[in-house]
Formats: sequence, C-alpha cells, structure tokens
Amino acid sequence: MKIELVTIGDELLLGFTIDTNAAFAARHLAELGVEIVRRTTVGDAAEPIAAAVREALDRTGAVITTGGLGPTSDDLTKPSIAAIFGRGMRFDEEHWAWMAERWRARFQREIPEANRRQAMIPEGARKLRNNHGSAPGIWLEDAQGRWVAMLPGVPREMRGMLADTILPLLRQRAAGNRVVRSRTLRTTGLPESLIAERVEAIPGGVPDVSLAYLPNVDGVDLRLTVRGTSADEADRRLALGADRLRAAFGGDVYGEGEADLAAIVLDVCRARGLSLAVAESCTGGLIGERITRIPGSSDVFLGGVISYANEVKTSLLGVPAAVLREHGAVSEEVARAMATGARERTGAAIGLSATGIAGPDGGTPEKPVGTVWIAADVAGEVRATLLHSWGDRQEVRQRAAQAALNLARKMLAG
Amino acid sequence: MKIELVTIGDELLLGFTIDTNAAFAARHLAELGVEIVRRTTVGDAAEPIAAAVREALDRTGAVITTGGLGPTSDDLTKPSIAAIFGRGMRFDEEHWAWMAERWRARFQREIPEANRRQAMIPEGARKLRNNHGSAPGIWLEDAQGRWVAMLPGVPREMRGMLADTILPLLRQRAAGNRVVRSRTLRTTGLPESLIAERVEAIPGGVPDVSLAYLPNVDGVDLRLTVRGTSADEADRRLALGADRLRAAFGGDVYGEGEADLAAIVLDVCRARGLSLAVAESCTGGLIGERITRIPGSSDVFLGGVISYANEVKTSLLGVPAAVLREHGAVSEEVARAMATGARERTGAAIGLSATGIAGPDGGTPEKPVGTVWIAADVAGEVRATLLHSWGDRQEVRQRAAQAALNLARKMLAG
Repeated sequence: MKIELVTIGDELLLGFTIDTNAAFAARHLAELGVEIVRRTTVGDAAEPIAAAVREALDRTGAVITTGGLGPTSDDLTKPSIAAIFGRGMRFDEEHWAWMAERWRARFQREIPEANRRQAMIPEGARKLRNNHGSAPGIWLEDAQGRWVAMLPGVPREMRGMLADTILPLLRQRAAGNRVVRSRTLRTTGLPESLIAERVEAIPGGVPDVSLAYLPNVDGVDLRLTVRGTSADEADRRLALGADRLRAAFGGDVYGEGEADLAAIVLDVCRARGLSLAVAESCTGGLIGERITRIPGSSDVFLGGVISYANEVKTSLLGVPAAVLREHGAVSEEVARAMATGARERTGAAIGLSATGIAGPDGGTPEKPVGTVWIAADVAGEVRATLLHSWGDRQEVRQRAAQAALNLARKMLAG
Repeated sequence: MKIELVTIGDELLLGFTIDTNAAFAARHLAELGVEIVRRTTVGDAAEPIAAAVREALDRTGAVITTGGLGPTSDDLTKPSIAAIFGRGMRFDEEHWAWMAERWRARFQREIPEANRRQAMIPEGARKLRNNHGSAPGIWLEDAQGRWVAMLPGVPREMRGMLADTILPLLRQRAAGNRVVRSRTLRTTGLPESLIAERVEAIPGGVPDVSLAYLPNVDGVDLRLTVRGTSADEADRRLALGADRLRAAFGGDVYGEGEADLAAIVLDVCRARGLSLAVAESCTGGLIGERITRIPGSSDVFLGGVISYANEVKTSLLGVPAAVLREHGAVSEEVARAMATGARERTGAAIGLSATGIAGPDGGTPEKPVGTVWIAADVAGEVRATLLHSWGDRQEVRQRAAQAALNLARKMLAG
C-alpha cells in the first residue's frame, strides 16, 4: 500500500518549526507495510492545500494530512478537501455539544457562537477521536475507496490519533501486505571500510536482509531491514541476520536501536559493584555530562575533575609536572596519569580520562587536531589508546567521549 | 520571488532522518524576500525525482533540491533533472582531476575508475563550489530563466553551499523584492508572562514590528520581524524596535540571534583578565562542556570538579562534611562552598557551581525535582540563587547550566 503525506502549515514552510511528525508517521506506517512515497508541505491557504491533496490523491488514492484543523487555522483544510470529493460541509450537533460541554467545564461559560465553524465537518465524513485536544480528525472516502485522513498538526495530538485510529484502520486494510521491519546494531571505533570487509567475509553473507551502514559521530550503525509477509516471519529473518552479524563482530557491537554507551557502561559497573570517575581535558565535562544524563547514574558515578589547564592536572589529579613537561599534555603518559588520578582522588574503582587537541587551533605536525589519548584505570590496571579523530571541534570531543566509554566497556567485558 | 524545495532521500521518507535542512533554507531565503511555497520529499529513485522537480518547475520556475548527489546515491538526481531540461551529461575533467588529487592525499592511492560517474555533470550546467565535501552543487538554467539548484543533502555541506553560493546568487535576482528581515533578542531567567507585561508597558509599544515569544530551554527569545521594501528600510525599523525592547529589558537581554551565554561569559572574563572554574553536581559536567565547546576557551577556563558524590564535594572542593549533613547537598550553603572550593582549588578568579535535583527520582516535598541552587564566587564575593526548574531531567540540567552562566554574567556586569 502506497500513500502520500501532506503536511500543512506556514510555520513549517517558513522554517520556524521542524517537521518531526512526518518521520514519526513514516516509521510506524512502514511496520504495517504502508509506504510513504511522497511528502508535500504547503502553507495555510486553501488553494495550495487543495492542489497538493488532489495531486497526491491522483497518484496514490490514499493521503494523510497533518495540520490546519485547529481553531486558529481558519478551518481551511476541511472544506478544501471536501470540495475535492464534491462534498459540502454539515454542522455536527454531537461535536458542538461536546465543545459546549468542554467550554462550560474549562472556562465556566457558554461557548461563543463564533466557534460553530469548528463543528462543521465534510458530508459523509467519519470523525476520528482526538484524545489529546479539541479538533477531531476526519476520514473522507469515496465510492472507489480513495481516502484522505486529516490529522491535527500538534505533535502530541497527531501522534496520539495516528496510534489510536489510523494505524488500526490501516492494519486491517493492509492485511496481506508485505510488512517492513528493521533492527539496528550499533558499533563504535571501527572504520566503515573495515565493517564492510567483515560483513563481506561472513560465510553465506546475510541473506534476505538489506543492510545499511549509517555512520554518525558515535560510530557506525548497521541497519537490517526485511520485507516479509507477516511481522513474525520478518522478525525471524531479522533475528537470523542479526545473529550472523553479531557473530562476525563479537564485542564490537555494543547495543541495538537507541542504546547509549554511557547507560551500558553504568549497567555493567552497577552489576559488578564498581564505581566510576572521570578526568577530562579536551572533552571538558562531556564524558561526565553523558554519564549523568542517565537517570540513576549517581549509584555508580562519583564525579571527577575537569582538568583543562595543566596546573589543574597537577593540583587536582596528581599528574607530575615533569611528565607534563616531558611528554606534553596530549600524550599516553598524561592520559594514564589522569585516569589513575581520577580513580585515586575520588576513591572510585574505575578512572576514565581523555586528553587531546579538539581544534580548530592547537594542532602541530606531530599532534594534529583530532589527536586524542584515552585511558582507563580499572582497579589499578591501566590501558590507553590513541584516537585519530576528525571533523569539527565538537565532533572531535564527542568521538573522544564515546571512545573513552568504549574503552571502559571493553576492559570490563574482559 | 517564489521557489519550491525538493528534498531527496529514502532516509527522509522512511523517517530515519529528520529534515532540518528545509527549515534552515526557509529562514535564510525569507531574509531575501524569497518565499518557499511548497516543499516536496521523494525517495532515491529517478522517476519520482524527475516528476517532483518537473511539477515544481512548472509551478514556480525556480527549484532548489537537496540530496542525491553523493558517491553512494547512484547519481540519480543529476541525470534525472538534466533530462527535464533536455540536456545530456558530460564528463568534467576539472572535477575528476580534483577528486583524483583528493584520493592521493587522503588514501595514498589512485582513484578507482568506478568513481568516474561522480565527475559527470549536466551539459551547460554551472558547478557550485562545495567547501565541505566532495560533491559539487549544480546550477541548471534554461533560456527562459527557469532554474534548478542541486545541493548535497548532508546538512553541513548543504548549509555551507547555500550560504556560499545560492544566497549571493539569489540576492542579486531578488533585488527589489519585498524583503522579510528579523532579529532575535535572547533573554534567560524571565518567565514569559513577565516578558509580555514588560512589552505591554513600553510607551507607544513596538510599532510596525511583529513580535513573537519563542520559549526554549535556554530562556525566551523575542523575535522581531518586519517586511519592508528594502533591506535597509526594514533594518532601520528593526533597529528601532530592538532599541525599544532593549531599553525595556536592560541587562536581561544577554545577546542576539544565536548568541551563546557561555561565549559571552568567556568574552567578558577574557576582557577583564579573569580565569574561570566550575564545581558541578546535578549538571555533571554540562557547564564545563558548554564552556569548552567554544573555541579558544582555554585562555579563560581552567577546569574544575564534577562533585556528583558528597565525598567528592568534601575531598576535592573542601565542602565541610558538617555543612553537607546539616543543610543537605542541595542547599545554598553547599552551593556557596562549592563555588568557593572551585575557585580556591584551581586558583581561578571565578568559581561557578550548581547543585540540585534533576529527577526523575530524588525529590521531596521540601525540595521537589527541579530545585537547583546556583552560586558564583567572583574574587571572594559570593552570590547564590535558587532555581525552580521544570521539565525532564535533561531540561532541568540545561536550565541549571544556563542559570549558572547567567549569574556569572550578571555579577561581572556590575
């Protein structure tokens, strides 16, 4: 089943609002095997709305609109689309009574007559219940089965109505469709080319699964997608594919979906009763920030030191001034001393450190921008690793924080 | 001038990527009086791309596309759109030489012949320089002046090319248009209702300017928008409006546009030769992270302590255990001692602290989630302030970091 999405709103066209509804709808519809083949955004004006919906209807016969239903939107969407179906508008007594009741309850007064327009709906339309706001959604369908579903634009209302009414309706119609299911395995610290080599070396490959490499600042995600005759059948094939990939990558897959490496490290520490501290130079607090973003991190994370200046590395972490002089702040020796300093000065079981050159300035031929030393001290065993990062200042810092968390994860895994 | 935007990418249609490019383009084009009247999103397939661009061109004669130019995208965008203009493709020697050079420098090897396709461009097209990636943009125009500009989809590349090439080109063509100009004044720490009262109390109001209140986690921005016959005329009216607002808000406006409070505090410190340190409890590194995100922060910022656990507040910041016992970690006394500890232990001129309950757990009737004490010690003068924050854990933390920076700004201002 192919459908089109028409999103309505001046704020969207003007760029003051980012359209997150469309992505939400696409993901949920895909799981029913419903494919969005085109998305169109138009402003709050009758003609552009009618044109966009008419064209979409001609192409697919199935259209979802969002926006233009609210009390302030001059009710353009409903009559414009009714006209495409050759329908007039009728006054809906039931909705008017509901609105009047709501006014009495909320504002302790009678609803003004001016609001009657909001109770107008296209003739022959089906109302879609809105559990999160006052404007009902509308389902309009003709004798040939061509339909338009009109949803509100407010994200909470749109998402609620999609889940409550549209998805169940389409699930029935889409029965027998091929469904699309996907899973995402997350890796970090491996270059995309090496990942591709490992995938190609899997005996028999990863059959029946389409595989996408999605590089981002935290690593490369592997998205597996299958189209199947049922969710169960598709999930079985997905599981087979994911198992093969996990076998090929072993411990390099740190999680699935939206898994956060900071949360994973916290879980491992918690399970083993280990506390954690940080010593941050180029990351400037980012590692701690990522850890403390996770609710409940306080039972594992003690804190640490942001040792941006060399004097602070010495005074608060005990990095010997001679080591700083001899090797420079961005060096294996200093990273190791920082990790151990964080552990010892806070009394934690694990100390985690990062020191590097985030740029844009400060690089040298020997230590260019992107050079970051990472170290972890796990109960006295210290390991260090050198990262050659790239991108802008913030990307270098984000990669450094992720690499530090990954070093801790790997050491804790054995 | 009316134009349409066609954004290309399966990832966008499938909902795995949120389209932020479109909003960025809309805002910048509006400043030239160029109006985006429709936005269409299609997948990575030749026919839908060609259909969407052809239709858009028929309506407005002016189209910007994003996406579908990269090396992995099978180069569908360029030939599809070239065909609309009745143009073939030609091999661009100059671009091929540039790519080959890049391969040698980056990968120390010759470029594979398979990449030749990337050097194909439509006949008669003008290349648009890409300062942030390898795929050039394309400008294609016919004898009637109908044009399509093809930009890459990667946000950094798309935004760079828009600013570097498209906006200057359109600025010439749009001369004489009715322009839309806006300015944004940034406030923090003031509730929206109080802001509205102050605006209403301005004698004579803010004439000829449409004013929008834009609340976000860092505060409330005031966006002034005017439509004018020229940029100069519009800017004059904007300046009058901004002056009136600044007079009404005084020091509560901390900057304009994308101004970042961390950068502003760094600038003031730098001008006065003052160094800065932090002591972070509930923010867990976020204040340090925001400060060190700014390039060049190292000449002001020394670092500090993430004192998540009480023991660390005592051992690394010198907060007396008795004060912690008597008042609790979330208290004015502890916030003050943390700020002073940060200043003294690092040798900085200014210590900045935050201690609070970010949630979702940990709240009590006396100190509910969102309770945050902020303190600043400026050369021995300590001030503290209590923040009643709201929203989820991360929002509470972000507001706390912003409030700490704002306290420093206000103390330094007088």
